[in-house]
Amino acid sequence: MNILVTLDHNYLPPLRVMLTSLLTNSPGERFAVYLIGDGLTAEDLRGLETLLTNRGCLCPVEVPEDLFADAPVARYWTRAMYYRLLAAQLLPKTLDRVLYLDPDILVINPVRPLYDTGLEGNLMAAATHTGLLAGITDPVNRLRLENYEAEAYYNSGVLLMDLAAMRREVCPADIFDYAREHADILLLPDQDILNGLYGARILGVDDSLWNYDARRFDRYLLLSQGEKDMDWVMGHTALLHFCGKRKPWNHSYQGRFSALYKHYWRLAARR
Amino acid sequence: MNILVTLDHNYLPPLRVMLTSLLTNSPGERFAVYLIGDGLTAEDLRGLETLLTNRGCLCPVEVPEDLFADAPVARYWTRAMYYRLLAAQLLPKTLDRVLYLDPDILVINPVRPLYDTGLEGNLMAAATHTGLLAGITDPVNRLRLENYEAEAYYNSGVLLMDLAAMRREVCPADIFDYAREHADILLLPDQDILNGLYGARILGVDDSLWNYDARRFDRYLLLSQGEKDMDWVMGHTALLHFCGKRKPWNHSYQGRFSALYKHYWRLAARR
Repeated sequence: MNILVTLDHNYLPPLRVMLTSLLTNSPGERFAVYLIGDGLTAEDLRGLETLLTNRGCLCPVEVPEDLFADAPVARYWTRAMYYRLLAAQLLPKTLDRVLYLDPDILVINPVRPLYDTGLEGNLMAAATHTGLLAGITDPVNRLRLENYEAEAYYNSGVLLMDLAAMRREVCPADIFDYAREHADILLLPDQDILNGLYGARILGVDDSLWNYDARRFDRYLLLSQGEKDMDWVMGHTALLHFCGKRKPWNHSYQGRFSALYKHYWRLAARR
Repeated sequence: MNILVTLDHNYLPPLRVMLTSLLTNSPGERFAVYLIGDGLTAEDLRGLETLLTNRGCLCPVEVPEDLFADAPVARYWTRAMYYRLLAAQLLPKTLDRVLYLDPDILVINPVRPLYDTGLEGNLMAAATHTGLLAGITDPVNRLRLENYEAEAYYNSGVLLMDLAAMRREVCPADIFDYAREHADILLLPDQDILNGLYGARILGVDDSLWNYDARRFDRYLLLSQGEKDMDWVMGHTALLHFCGKRKPWNHSYQGRFSALYKHYWRLAARR
């Protein structure tokens, strides 16, 4: 199974947690982990290789400087924000499919069913964070990003990519142009660009299974009329996404999945 | 490492969770699991052997009928309540040390430091569930059980046993006599007998490490003046004990360790 991660040095510990949980919850599965990262040392990379021992290989990806010659880099933007959007350009041409995962994700069930999802001619599969406010935020976001064709505003933390299709349709110049033209209104640059340019070419998947917003336990429970309780989540959800500013590796974090995440933090430290 | 578990068929699923968590959190360690259980089928035992594959062996223990010829069996009491107290009589004579663990325990860090604890001439090591009320309940329990020598009221869910010393000092007739004489006031029979007869011969160990009462997160945090937060617990506590009537495998359970326990429930189901 091909996995893509992009990160800087600060996110290395959560990345180790994400990968530990991925291995633990996909017994018998082997992984090729493609890593596009800035500022990682040789020691960081050796540590990741040790973590993957017997279960997969680490494939660091070189980023050609010239690819970014024309990229706008505004205020808080870094090159790293473009990496997942340019996966088709950066990954080996022999690769057809890859699953991108944010480092603030905890895997708690097998991801194979997502990985094998038919993309029905779309470029990617992704999830919308549904909720009580979904009916309001989606039209607002569509208006803001001037993309009326897209059915929803997709979260960019989990992206199943058809790399062959993306090589044909995704053009770096389009991405950089879009970033330049919308610089004023991009709140979450990578996610906004993804939705603004490619929202209509994304297949929606169930966020309660494949991109569960860990802040929103009560909301999922309510929307499902009580079905999606903790037993359901632990039995069905594969990808718990710790979205937002409060991160579960901070001391002060108090969410319902706090003990679970912090336990995996220890399991990762032991590997 | 020798582990002792005693149970009836109803507690088989939690036992599988306890053992899964024990293996997961003691990498490289091998276990001999001695099982004294009533009503387990051949299939139950095969399932436990599969769970232990490559990490240890299952050793079912025969209970001789004549040992219980003189045992009082009152209202809700079963023979099973005596098993842990009679470990020295029931386990092979070649065994010197064993760690008894309740099936409603989740292991989240290595137990080796507890297992290697010097017993300083005592029969066992066990923990008291300290708390804001400890100063009240311990004298009350000592009075109730007429044992003024014991320093505390020990929880019987985690017991590190010196079997050689117990073979010399623990006498089944004493236990049955004590049960008969105190039948009216025994609230938790096995635990009350343990404390009443052998409380003064038990070495106390830190409950926040070796028998953490999972209902009492806020109390541990308060008593430690904020030190024992969730990071501390996940980094230090080895044995989380889900004491009391509300069990984490029930749908309605809502404790802080709910997600963690229910995730291990799934990991156990996969083994």
